[in-house]
Amino acid sequence: MLKFSESVSFDRRLASFDIQGSKAHAAMLAHVGLISKKDRDAIGAGLDKIGHEIEAGRFRWNTRLEDVHMNIEQALTKRVPAAARLHTARSRNDQVATDMRLFFKHACAVLQAKLHGAGRALLAVAEANRDVLIPGYTHLQRAQPVPLAHHLLAWLEMIERDHRRLAEVADHANWCPLGSGAVAGTSLPIDREFTAKALGFVDRRGRPRVTQNSMDAVADRDVFIEFAAACALTGVHLSRIAEDLILWASAEFGFVALPDAFCTGSSLMPQKKNPDACELLRGKAARLQGNLHTLLTLVKGLPLTYNRDLQGTNRRSSTVSTRPHSVSMCSPACLRA
Amino acid sequence: MLKFSESVSFDRRLASFDIQGSKAHAAMLAHVGLISKKDRDAIGAGLDKIGHEIEAGRFRWNTRLEDVHMNIEQALTKRVPAAARLHTARSRNDQVATDMRLFFKHACAVLQAKLHGAGRALLAVAEANRDVLIPGYTHLQRAQPVPLAHHLLAWLEMIERDHRRLAEVADHANWCPLGSGAVAGTSLPIDREFTAKALGFVDRRGRPRVTQNSMDAVADRDVFIEFAAACALTGVHLSRIAEDLILWASAEFGFVALPDAFCTGSSLMPQKKNPDACELLRGKAARLQGNLHTLLTLVKGLPLTYNRDLQGTNRRSSTVSTRPHSVSMCSPACLRA
Amino acid sequence: MLKFSESVSFDRRLASFDIQGSKAHAAMLAHVGLISKKDRDAIGAGLDKIGHEIEAGRFRWNTRLEDVHMNIEQALTKRVPAAARLHTARSRNDQVATDMRLFFKHACAVLQAKLHGAGRALLAVAEANRDVLIPGYTHLQRAQPVPLAHHLLAWLEMIERDHRRLAEVADHANWCPLGSGAVAGTSLPIDREFTAKALGFVDRRGRPRVTQNSMDAVADRDVFIEFAAACALTGVHLSRIAEDLILWASAEFGFVALPDAFCTGSSLMPQKKNPDACELLRGKAARLQGNLHTLLTLVKGLPLTYNRDLQGTNRRSSTVSTRPHSVSMCSPACLRA
Amino acid sequence: MLKFSESVSFDRRLASFDIQGSKAHAAMLAHVGLISKKDRDAIGAGLDKIGHEIEAGRFRWNTRLEDVHMNIEQALTKRVPAAARLHTARSRNDQVATDMRLFFKHACAVLQAKLHGAGRALLAVAEANRDVLIPGYTHLQRAQPVPLAHHLLAWLEMIERDHRRLAEVADHANWCPLGSGAVAGTSLPIDREFTAKALGFVDRRGRPRVTQNSMDAVADRDVFIEFAAACALTGVHLSRIAEDLILWASAEFGFVALPDAFCTGSSLMPQKKNPDACELLRGKAARLQGNLHTLLTLVKGLPLTYNRDLQGTNRRSSTVSTRPHSVSMCSPACLRA
Repeated sequence: MLKFSESVSFDRRLASFDIQGSKAHAAMLAHVGLISKKDRDAIGAGLDKIGHEIEAGRFRWNTRLEDVHMNIEQALTKRVPAAARLHTARSRNDQVATDMRLFFKHACAVLQAKLHGAGRALLAVAEANRDVLIPGYTHLQRAQPVPLAHHLLAWLEMIERDHRRLAEVADHANWCPLGSGAVAGTSLPIDREFTAKALGFVDRRGRPRVTQNSMDAVADRDVFIEFAAACALTGVHLSRIAEDLILWASAEFGFVALPDAFCTGSSLMPQKKNPDACELLRGKAARLQGNLHTLLTLVKGLPLTYNRDLQGTNRRSSTVSTRPHSVSMCSPACLRA
Repeated sequence: MLKFSESVSFDRRLASFDIQGSKAHAAMLAHVGLISKKDRDAIGAGLDKIGHEIEAGRFRWNTRLEDVHMNIEQALTKRVPAAARLHTARSRNDQVATDMRLFFKHACAVLQAKLHGAGRALLAVAEANRDVLIPGYTHLQRAQPVPLAHHLLAWLEMIERDHRRLAEVADHANWCPLGSGAVAGTSLPIDREFTAKALGFVDRRGRPRVTQNSMDAVADRDVFIEFAAACALTGVHLSRIAEDLILWASAEFGFVALPDAFCTGSSLMPQKKNPDACELLRGKAARLQGNLHTLLTLVKGLPLTYNRDLQGTNRRSSTVSTRPHSVSMCSPACLRA
Repeated sequence: MLKFSESVSFDRRLASFDIQGSKAHAAMLAHVGLISKKDRDAIGAGLDKIGHEIEAGRFRWNTRLEDVHMNIEQALTKRVPAAARLHTARSRNDQVATDMRLFFKHACAVLQAKLHGAGRALLAVAEANRDVLIPGYTHLQRAQPVPLAHHLLAWLEMIERDHRRLAEVADHANWCPLGSGAVAGTSLPIDREFTAKALGFVDRRGRPRVTQNSMDAVADRDVFIEFAAACALTGVHLSRIAEDLILWASAEFGFVALPDAFCTGSSLMPQKKNPDACELLRGKAARLQGNLHTLLTLVKGLPLTYNRDLQGTNRRSSTVSTRPHSVSMCSPACLRA
Repeated sequence: MLKFSESVSFDRRLASFDIQGSKAHAAMLAHVGLISKKDRDAIGAGLDKIGHEIEAGRFRWNTRLEDVHMNIEQALTKRVPAAARLHTARSRNDQVATDMRLFFKHACAVLQAKLHGAGRALLAVAEANRDVLIPGYTHLQRAQPVPLAHHLLAWLEMIERDHRRLAEVADHANWCPLGSGAVAGTSLPIDREFTAKALGFVDRRGRPRVTQNSMDAVADRDVFIEFAAACALTGVHLSRIAEDLILWASAEFGFVALPDAFCTGSSLMPQKKNPDACELLRGKAARLQGNLHTLLTLVKGLPLTYNRDLQGTNRRSSTVSTRPHSVSMCSPACLRA
């Protein structure tokens, strides 16, 4: 059962976000007077130390503690007894939701940077080959001659759209769910906007953004699916580009010679130079689609709110009250139009 | 082969957009002097007449003519010989791309209105039941009591996000590909911004938006996939709502009595009242995921540019030249950051 | 709601199987003495007449009656009052399950015949081109020369496996669920083996095959998914074959000239001959995957037994008792090993 | 590029099958006189030693050597120079195909044993609760009372079908592709039936089974997809069973109390007992569908024969000739009907 249910083997990637979230939560608790400043500082220092150990590969992960949250929490409480207060006005459910939103904001930024780099590379090749003409194809039949640069800039358009889509996903992730508790918020006098600001959940003018409904906030996995969809579509584009390159690198087309570093050969057939990198790109793109399928199917059948299907735990959540913090009858934006 | 390759049995839904696109194209051709104003008016009148016949169910579709475009074109040319000029500076490829973008802008607006209506209905039920408490669940185990309204507003949050996502898809669709020709643009002195404006491809300030790369414009199917993804995620939400309602309508939960109009009974077992509408919602949501899968998989393996997999035709495109209209070395937005 | 829930627009394809099943059921009821032989004959004649009308396109389908079963039942009862007895010991649930199993057995046979035809065609081309050598490719790079016939026989191996898989699906479909009722069987003295034999649910030696558990029999959709999986894999093969042909038909490869009947051209670019049939094959194969996705996702989240997600109805089932017909403690085959 | 292309981090699970295959190949080479018996024995002993080291966790995997095959080969050749002869009449392509078929036969057997155990457990619970009645549900509405045992035996039927399907997949895997070389077989006087027998690729009477076409044998991934489909369908069943149990364990149904070992609780809400094991089952079932999606999509777009998308390598294949070993014009089974 332990092996079946543990997640620390994969969710440890969330460690830095979990630490960031806990520090912000402690700072907020001190800000509103629910813990002392001394406790806040002790908790912060303890978390920083754990963070350094994890980065340096010295932290001892324990699968018996199931997930990244329990691992960090247990290590912290051993060192800083006051850390038991971190449970105040926070549940595993809103903690996980926060970690994941921080993760997706970061992941989008990383991917955007990579796409930016790919775009610049394409542009450089296009500029260096301004005068080269190649056939433009429809139906894989030659249609009309086009500049090679025109073809490369078509790829750039795809990448440009992928870049923008990731920006939108990051924007959708940019709302802070802390304060939602296990499902029904908390009656303690927390300051959700303080935490949101501390974690960078702010709009362009720096104003904090917090989620509106506690039940939705712990049940919602839209950003997961949107991120997977954006990756799947990026994969489709990279796959199409790879398909073009594989054709161009064939003896029959002969438009490009790919660098040795991205190919493999054959001792038996020395004439061969296989475009492995492109083929792997095409193959890995399929997995991005499979991941999207998994997420859509997983979430589809679930009633509200949190279910363990969503892999995470709220087993030891504490001190949340039964007064929903965020029930409001205000009209959401879609009703204002 | 005809039965295998015809698309008019399903693409006839594009008729009104095809007519709209052809009228705008004719207007542009007249504007730049490529056809006379008399021809423009004759073409416009002919297209309007065909549009009325289609709406009234009097138009005779012919599967031998394969698709909606050929059906309308042939009917028009019989009546208005000048319509042969419509081919000037336009190919089947950019025509199809334009029709589909008009279609998706329309479809997003229709769905947004439906979601808006659903949201208002939810809000009304929430307001009418302000004082009702129900258990809040995690793991389908009772966690903490919550107002029913709080649960309903959690649904509203989902719908609100679906609404916003469709707005983004519509925005992405909002670029005019006319002028891209079959693959390499045209050398004729067309005015792409005129057509874009005429078809409503404009930004918030009314400035025309045209696609930047002709090869990409005819090969790109991103908006199709984005629309399918937005629908699949909306389906996930409706499925989760349906799951909640089916549970609530069971004898064991007994939270709601669904209206007879949305249920079925059993003559044998009169105690039964089956929540068919909710079950169908849950079932149909699966198909939305299947459609997304189909599109992602279909597009993934294709080299540039247009391939018939994308179902459409450019067989009789004419008078496009080999000088790409839109080759430009300007840095796209993702490179400016 | 009617439009949302009707299925007759697509399940009318089941008409001949529904009629076949009802005739067998009536014959069994007469056989065990639950209806008279006169009634059996009247019901049989009435059903035959309706069957002829449907085949001739003269039957009036009514979407207000929702599905194929209600349409036929209502038409029959109007003409043959004794048909009301058809409800005896049968529910909509086991009726639908029976129709679908008959449908899948038939569909497998039809597809197998088509694959057989394709195989013979491949073999003929292989034999007619025994001496032609082409390059054998790996990584789309030329590896070693091979006879064209060798390549074609590789395709034949794929088709051969598809053929066998369909035989297995048909074998899995070959169990008769009649007698399962709505969920709990029936206490009436029916003869399930009689019906099974009448409908051809028999093993190689002609012995009847009936399902073992009434709850499973009405909830089970495995054969649907297996059929969709076999079709999806066949689609993968046809797509790979199409991919080979599209490459071979390109100017760069130039291995084949496809017949005009399966291609399209371009008035503007007379040199073009587009391999539309192959591209459509590749494109339609994607939909077969989407369908599989839909079914897997649809069934995944459902508790036992029948749920309307499965689209069908058992609303007017009658006279089934509460004594499960088929509860047995015998060890199934997997426990005997 | 190395990190992008290495597979040893996941294909090391194939080690025991790779070793088994190499030993059989060496034995065959000695049998036909292509290597000496002394070399065969040295190779066999060397491989056994490496196998023991891997099992004991003492083998040093090197990602620079990319895959499991290169890792074992390099380690072996260092210790047993004669191992260079293992390349005789074998390529990476038919080696990988063989390893995978051995893997799938083994995996099917393991899963069948687990399903067998689950079936026995269900049967025991059914027998121990012969007299318990529960409601039978359709549409999640109570329909008719049924024995609990009847419901459990419905689950058993599902598991029984999964068991049989895995047997069919194992049977489809049970053909030996060795001798296919990179793509075109070999002209060396090998004895394919010897190797097939040595590796257990035999029919019920012990007769060897070898694949018929070398190009198909290295390009074919049907068994991968069939295995993934069988797992996905098993996952659907386990998910439905889990769904039943989650409902039954709710306060509202209250049919079962799940053992603590499979649940989690909440310090804050001591009344809670969350059915985590069931939820995880339901969640992990979604991934099985995603994996199937990945494979179908990955294979779909590929021309023959081997492409690196299929992740594996044939870079250093050697001494295969250009005379296809297995070209034959005999009618495959589907043409004999």
